[in-house]
Amino acid sequence: MTKYLSDLEIANQATVRPILEIAEEAGIPADAVEPYGHFKAKIDTSKVTTNKEGKIVLVTAMSPTPAGEGKSTVTVGISDAFKELGKSVMVALREPSLGPVFGMKGGATGGGRAQVLPMEEINLHFNGDLHAITTANNALAAFIDNHIYQGNQLNIDPRRVEWKRVIDMNDRTLRQVVVGLGGPFKGVPREDGFDITVASEIMAVFCLSNNITDLKENLGKMTIGYTYDRKPVTVKDLGVEGALTLILKDALKPNLVQTIEGTPALIHGGPFANIAHGCNSIIATKTARKLADIVVTESGFGSDLGAEKFMDIKARKADIKPDAIVVVATIRALKMHGGVAKTELSNENVESLKSGIQNLEKHIENLRLFGVEPVIALNNFVTDTDAEREFVQNWAKEQGVKLALTEVWEHGGKGGVELAKLVLEVLETPQDFKHLYDLSMPVEEKIRTIVQKIYGADDVVFAEKARKQLKTIADNGWNEYPVCMAKTQYSFSDDPKKLGRPTGFNVTIRELIPKTGAGFIVALTGDIMTMPGLPKEPAALKMDVDADGNAVGLF
Amino acid sequence: MTKYLSDLEIANQATVRPILEIAEEAGIPADAVEPYGHFKAKIDTSKVTTNKEGKIVLVTAMSPTPAGEGKSTVTVGISDAFKELGKSVMVALREPSLGPVFGMKGGATGGGRAQVLPMEEINLHFNGDLHAITTANNALAAFIDNHIYQGNQLNIDPRRVEWKRVIDMNDRTLRQVVVGLGGPFKGVPREDGFDITVASEIMAVFCLSNNITDLKENLGKMTIGYTYDRKPVTVKDLGVEGALTLILKDALKPNLVQTIEGTPALIHGGPFANIAHGCNSIIATKTARKLADIVVTESGFGSDLGAEKFMDIKARKADIKPDAIVVVATIRALKMHGGVAKTELSNENVESLKSGIQNLEKHIENLRLFGVEPVIALNNFVTDTDAEREFVQNWAKEQGVKLALTEVWEHGGKGGVELAKLVLEVLETPQDFKHLYDLSMPVEEKIRTIVQKIYGADDVVFAEKARKQLKTIADNGWNEYPVCMAKTQYSFSDDPKKLGRPTGFNVTIRELIPKTGAGFIVALTGDIMTMPGLPKEPAALKMDVDADGNAVGLF
Repeated sequence: MTKYLSDLEIANQATVRPILEIAEEAGIPADAVEPYGHFKAKIDTSKVTTNKEGKIVLVTAMSPTPAGEGKSTVTVGISDAFKELGKSVMVALREPSLGPVFGMKGGATGGGRAQVLPMEEINLHFNGDLHAITTANNALAAFIDNHIYQGNQLNIDPRRVEWKRVIDMNDRTLRQVVVGLGGPFKGVPREDGFDITVASEIMAVFCLSNNITDLKENLGKMTIGYTYDRKPVTVKDLGVEGALTLILKDALKPNLVQTIEGTPALIHGGPFANIAHGCNSIIATKTARKLADIVVTESGFGSDLGAEKFMDIKARKADIKPDAIVVVATIRALKMHGGVAKTELSNENVESLKSGIQNLEKHIENLRLFGVEPVIALNNFVTDTDAEREFVQNWAKEQGVKLALTEVWEHGGKGGVELAKLVLEVLETPQDFKHLYDLSMPVEEKIRTIVQKIYGADDVVFAEKARKQLKTIADNGWNEYPVCMAKTQYSFSDDPKKLGRPTGFNVTIRELIPKTGAGFIVALTGDIMTMPGLPKEPAALKMDVDADGNAVGLF
Repeated sequence: MTKYLSDLEIANQATVRPILEIAEEAGIPADAVEPYGHFKAKIDTSKVTTNKEGKIVLVTAMSPTPAGEGKSTVTVGISDAFKELGKSVMVALREPSLGPVFGMKGGATGGGRAQVLPMEEINLHFNGDLHAITTANNALAAFIDNHIYQGNQLNIDPRRVEWKRVIDMNDRTLRQVVVGLGGPFKGVPREDGFDITVASEIMAVFCLSNNITDLKENLGKMTIGYTYDRKPVTVKDLGVEGALTLILKDALKPNLVQTIEGTPALIHGGPFANIAHGCNSIIATKTARKLADIVVTESGFGSDLGAEKFMDIKARKADIKPDAIVVVATIRALKMHGGVAKTELSNENVESLKSGIQNLEKHIENLRLFGVEPVIALNNFVTDTDAEREFVQNWAKEQGVKLALTEVWEHGGKGGVELAKLVLEVLETPQDFKHLYDLSMPVEEKIRTIVQKIYGADDVVFAEKARKQLKTIADNGWNEYPVCMAKTQYSFSDDPKKLGRPTGFNVTIRELIPKTGAGFIVALTGDIMTMPGLPKEPAALKMDVDADGNAVGLF
């Protein structure tokens, strides 16, 4: 068996080109490029003034498993494949959170020969966007507590402040805290908690705003809590939406980097794919469309989560639609959905694929509900056998769904050419995109529609608390918002252990959280962790810097 | 009376030149310049390899008052004056904290015609240095709590964790908190608190390290708390000094900007001047020395605090010395020290100067203890009268101390030429620099020396707690460290109300905090605030961004 290099080794061997060259090739006007070092830049989008509207290829996946599917890797790889085919292409990705970097090994910049560069810097502070969001979030928290402390003119109930502080770190100790202790000069005591930065509503607002004016308006609409007489209090009531926008103004410019093969990539914004919508910023996607004929972008987790939200939340806000959809699948993941343990994945097991394939089947059915024909990227692993591949290929033929093997991890763009060609066929065929539900439906019905049509559940059950919240939502005129489902990514159901294609289940909605700035209602099923913890042996223990300032042990 | 423009208006009218031009003029090799946008850059110091060792002009001040002395303004102005005189000059300044920006109006980038540009960006995220320090600080906090949660192999006593979390925000509500609540999966509960980022020991370590290897070593030496049997626990014990260095590696490169008149400026690091030493980074100062014949740098608060620490802490760590010292004074401040109320400062009052001048006199006496002859910059204000100026000038003549009027706020470098010429005279005369105390003296004696010689106190009194800590310091072998006094900046004494030149007082040391990474022992006198609060009407309420993305109401 070939000895494979690590992602960092491959990245270090790759030649990273000056970002000004990449920008020029991408057709970005020189005065729109603000370099951050030699290999990253921010783009002043007001100076990108073409009339082009490139087509959108959305990359999603089957229900993820611990085996790893390589969705970002395929997203990068197919972009390089389009470039290989002489197409004008740009990739738009989410930016990684710094927190998890110190917990588990593994970045969010693709892998093997299908990576974006410079991976170290993208995985660390990356032009400061997440720091700006942390700062804006915590400035707002300070403004709220200061308002209460300084007389509380708005009559905010400290027990009903919903706005949490954030930190871009895995820190379980901050999940539940009490602040304002120490007497009258140290604020008003109240229960509080910290989320990880990517879970901040500001991250969602940032990614769902079309420009800086839109951003300010949406920030102003965020509900930070309730008065003693239960009226919502917004950022606009506090009068600080201008200051928050000021904190975010530079971060709002999308970040330009490159793939190993020199394809231009915009990496910008990275909201959670459970309590938020899990897609890169609208501004990045739209800027890429002005510059390239084909824009490849991804959504978080499986198609039941990220892709559904792309269609029903992001596409609406941005007034865009996917022109083609790629569903990433692997034989290893299909086997896990067929009941094979992670330790047994390297052994051939065609039998397990027969039930495992039903997971993929349901994803394909779902995506067809949106009127866009999906293409399957079967992402090759060295342990896959011919018999296994043949089984999946035959199944695809029976289903009438396009499927291509991809070897982008090992071969970069060349390994994705077959996939790119199939996607081009879809792009050349008019698709009939439609949303899953109408905004005019009440929130309860929107949730029922998603749960039944996308998850395959019998029905939705609202817990007592959620039932009451449905009334608050109606009373406050929030029924017009789309729904942002917060569900385990591992199953179509709300039980992470129900793999494959579960049937005969209900989905319970525990709580509803109105995100009036992002413009959606989060529906929580089960426990959704908004602040991760560190493992016993954090990856940080292996990290170092050599005397020349080079990162060691980052990945 | 002339109508004066605001600092922001002046800054906006100024022509800011491309940073690559400024870098080239400053003799920085092109491959050492990492642009951050068009007007800021980071410098890869490993590529600045001259043998030059420019002379150091240290700018300090009399005891500050609410009237404002304009120390940063004079620091910038005299640099421009040296340029005006055809000298090779670079200015090295501290970088501002973002927190206070949203509280009170006012930046830290000089004023009038003596400013550094681009002021907006310097006062907001400025290349992410403070964010990196916040991140490193809070990563360490997460690693500590995770260690305790995951079995606590090091036997850390959660009640004796001294490492606090930080946030770059004025947020009184976080001063005293309880973390780890919510049951066994949310950590181990303990009392905690947040400081503002600039109060983090990491900021001090960052500024007192000579290079990245030194940084890693110093980070490793930081004491984070004590075991159940009272043994100090260091970052090295936790094994995360490499990860912290990785977080800081880009921030460690000094930031290049320019003054309104195009003088190159390195702005890098900004530790508190009470619980830390209050000077910009050693790396910035040393890099500037490699590039310019004259390096102008400032220290925090009055000479009793920042300058003393420059001499006894920074100069030792960096193996440098000041070749000339400028003491900034104003007639308004002298009048306040002479008992005039802030509201009465615009009225002529020569009588008050007679007692007020004693404050300046003591600063001059003190600085002469270090063997370097100080030069007074009497920073002009429109309300100063001829009689007042004459009084101060005559006094200076009697004292045999050089004094120049400066009008850098109004006239930029031209307004500082007289001052620059006097400083050049000092630079051309050999000075006999010496530290105030020997490192071999015990901490108690070092404190007594500072308190008696610099503050003019009768003696030092150690509170019960501090008395015990002197023993811990001796037991742990920490007596070799210099002392970092944390005292009110408004008075030579520990009582902020005792203006002028107080006599017949003792200074009480409440607590001693060993900062074994920064390499000093903080001696706390009175209450030192390490987390500011916001005022009733925060400056944030007036801040905004227009549709073109320009800041409004920042200053």
